Amino acid sequence: MSNTIERKFLEIQDMILDGLLSLESKKNRKPIVDNWKSKIGKGKTCVIENGNVFEKAVVTFSSVSGKNLPASSGMSANINKIHKFEAMGVSVICHPKNPKAPTSHFNVRTFMIFDKKGLQNWWIGGGCDLTPFLPYKSDITLWHKSLKSMFDLFNKTFYKKFAKECDKYFFLPHRKERRGVGGVFFDNLKYKEHLDSLNLLECLGKEYTQTYSKILKRRASEKYSKDQKLFQQIRRGRYAEFNLLHDRGTKFGLESGGRVKSILSSMPPSTSWTYEMPKELKKYETRLLKILKESWVV
Amino acid sequence: MSNTIERKFLEIQDMILDGLLSLESKKNRKPIVDNWKSKIGKGKTCVIENGNVFEKAVVTFSSVSGKNLPASSGMSANINKIHKFEAMGVSVICHPKNPKAPTSHFNVRTFMIFDKKGLQNWWIGGGCDLTPFLPYKSDITLWHKSLKSMFDLFNKTFYKKFAKECDKYFFLPHRKERRGVGGVFFDNLKYKEHLDSLNLLECLGKEYTQTYSKILKRRASEKYSKDQKLFQQIRRGRYAEFNLLHDRGTKFGLESGGRVKSILSSMPPSTSWTYEMPKELKKYETRLLKILKESWVV
Repeated sequence: MSNTIERKFLEIQDMILDGLLSLESKKNRKPIVDNWKSKIGKGKTCVIENGNVFEKAVVTFSSVSGKNLPASSGMSANINKIHKFEAMGVSVICHPKNPKAPTSHFNVRTFMIFDKKGLQNWWIGGGCDLTPFLPYKSDITLWHKSLKSMFDLFNKTFYKKFAKECDKYFFLPHRKERRGVGGVFFDNLKYKEHLDSLNLLECLGKEYTQTYSKILKRRASEKYSKDQKLFQQIRRGRYAEFNLLHDRGTKFGLESGGRVKSILSSMPPSTSWTYEMPKELKKYETRLLKILKESWVV
Repeated sequence: MSNTIERKFLEIQDMILDGLLSLESKKNRKPIVDNWKSKIGKGKTCVIENGNVFEKAVVTFSSVSGKNLPASSGMSANINKIHKFEAMGVSVICHPKNPKAPTSHFNVRTFMIFDKKGLQNWWIGGGCDLTPFLPYKSDITLWHKSLKSMFDLFNKTFYKKFAKECDKYFFLPHRKERRGVGGVFFDNLKYKEHLDSLNLLECLGKEYTQTYSKILKRRASEKYSKDQKLFQQIRRGRYAEFNLLHDRGTKFGLESGGRVKSILSSMPPSTSWTYEMPKELKKYETRLLKILKESWVV
C-alpha cells in the first residue's frame, strides 16, 4: 500500500513539474533534480532557478517515518498506541521573476499511523494559496472559482470551509496582514477510502497547475519597472517572515530533524528589508493592502 | 532615576550613531530619525540606508514598561510581587555594503522591577557580535582582544565567560552553524551599583564603536566581485533565519506587542535564498565555515 501511495505522490510531482517547465523557454527546461535521503526519510527535490518565468520554483516529494510525532504535526490519534507513523507529500513553491505574476504555494500530504496490527488511522491534508504583489482582480477571481469548481465535484461544503481555513492560517499577526489572497487549506480530512482521498489530492494538483499556469501566461511577460521589482522584493520579506515565524510545515520539518535544504527551499530567492516602505512604492502598498483585506472567497 | 538612565542610554545612542556616520561620505550623513511611541513604550530609531559604507545601519533607543513580563524576557524575579517593570536599551545593527566588511550587532539594556515600595530589583544585559562573510583573521582577533581589554578593566573573569555565552547564543541549530565569530553576550548581570553597571554598558558602547570603525576603515573600500556580493546576500539569509527563528530580543519584542518596524529593522537589506550554494561560491563557503568552527575567544 505504501508503494501505491508513493507512486501516486510521485505522479503528482511529475505532473506539476512538467506543467511549470512547459512555461519556461526550452533552454531553461533543465531543473536540478536532487534525490536525497535523510535520517528519517527520503525525497526528490526538483528546482528551477533563474528561469525566464521563475526566479525560483521548487517541487518536492518527501516521505518521512518514525516512532514519535513532533508536536507540530498537529495529529489527533492516540499517541500511546502508536507503533510507527508515515508521512508523505508533495510541496510546491513558485517565485516568478515578474512582480506582476503572483507567488504561489501548494501542498498535499497524507499521514498514516500504524500499530502492531497494521494501519490504525490515516488522514490527508493540503492546500494552495496565492500571493500577488501587484494584484489583478481577474487573476484572484479565476483562482478561487477554479478551486471551488474542483472541490464541488467532491463535496459542496468543502471549498467554503477550506477557503476560510486558508485565510485564517496564512496570517501574520505581528503585521496584522494576510499573506496573500488565500485559496484552500485543510488538514485531518478523510474523504471516503484512502485511495479516494488521494484522488482528491491528485485533482487538486491538476487544478493548481492549470489555473496557476493560466495566470502566469497572462503576467509573466508583462513589462515592469525597477520600482515594481523592488516592491516585490520587499513584500517577499513578509513571505520569509511567515515561513520562519509561523509556518507549521517549516516547524515540523526543522523539529523532526528534516533536511534543511528542502525545508527552506520555500524561501524567496531575493528579498529586501528596508526600514520603511520607500515613498515611491507607497502607492503599490496601499493598493495591495486593500486587496489583502477583502474576502476573495466565492 | 529613570530619567538619568534614559539620558545615559540616549548618550550611548548618540555616540554610536556619530561614530558610524563619520565613516560615511558627507552627503550620506543624514540618517532617518524616527521618534515614536507605541502602546507600551517609546523610542528613537536612527537609520542610515544606501550609504557608501552601510547598505543599512540602525541605531535604536527604546524604553518599554508594563505590568506583565513576556516569558521571553527571561527574568528571574518573583513575578507575584511585581507591580511594574521597565526595560530600556540601545540596539545597533550594521549591514555594510562591502562583503569584505563584517556585519555587526550591539545591544545594551537594563531591566527594572518595581513593587509598591519602589525599585525591587534591576539587572543589565547586552553584548556585541561580529558576522564576517569573507573573513580576515586580523579583524576577528582585533575584535576579541579589544573586548577582552575593556572587560578586564571591570572584572578579569567577565570576558571569557561572556565570550563563551555569545558563542552558545548565536548558534543556528538547524544549520549546525554559528552565526558569526562571536564577541560577548551577558544577561542578569549586576556590577556594583546600578550606575556602575550603566557605566560598564557605556564603555562597551565606546569599545564597540571604536573597534568596529577600525575594521570598517580597513574593509569598506576594498574591491569585490559580483560573486562575493552574492555570497554575502546568501549568507545574510542565515542572519534572517537566526533573527526570526531564534533571537530572544525579536521574540520579546513581537510578543510584548512592540513596534514591528523597529524590531525587524535588524533584518538584512538584501538577501538571497538559493536552493544550494552556487558552485562558484563554494570556495568562499568552505573557508567561512572553517573560520566559524574555530574558537576565537582570546
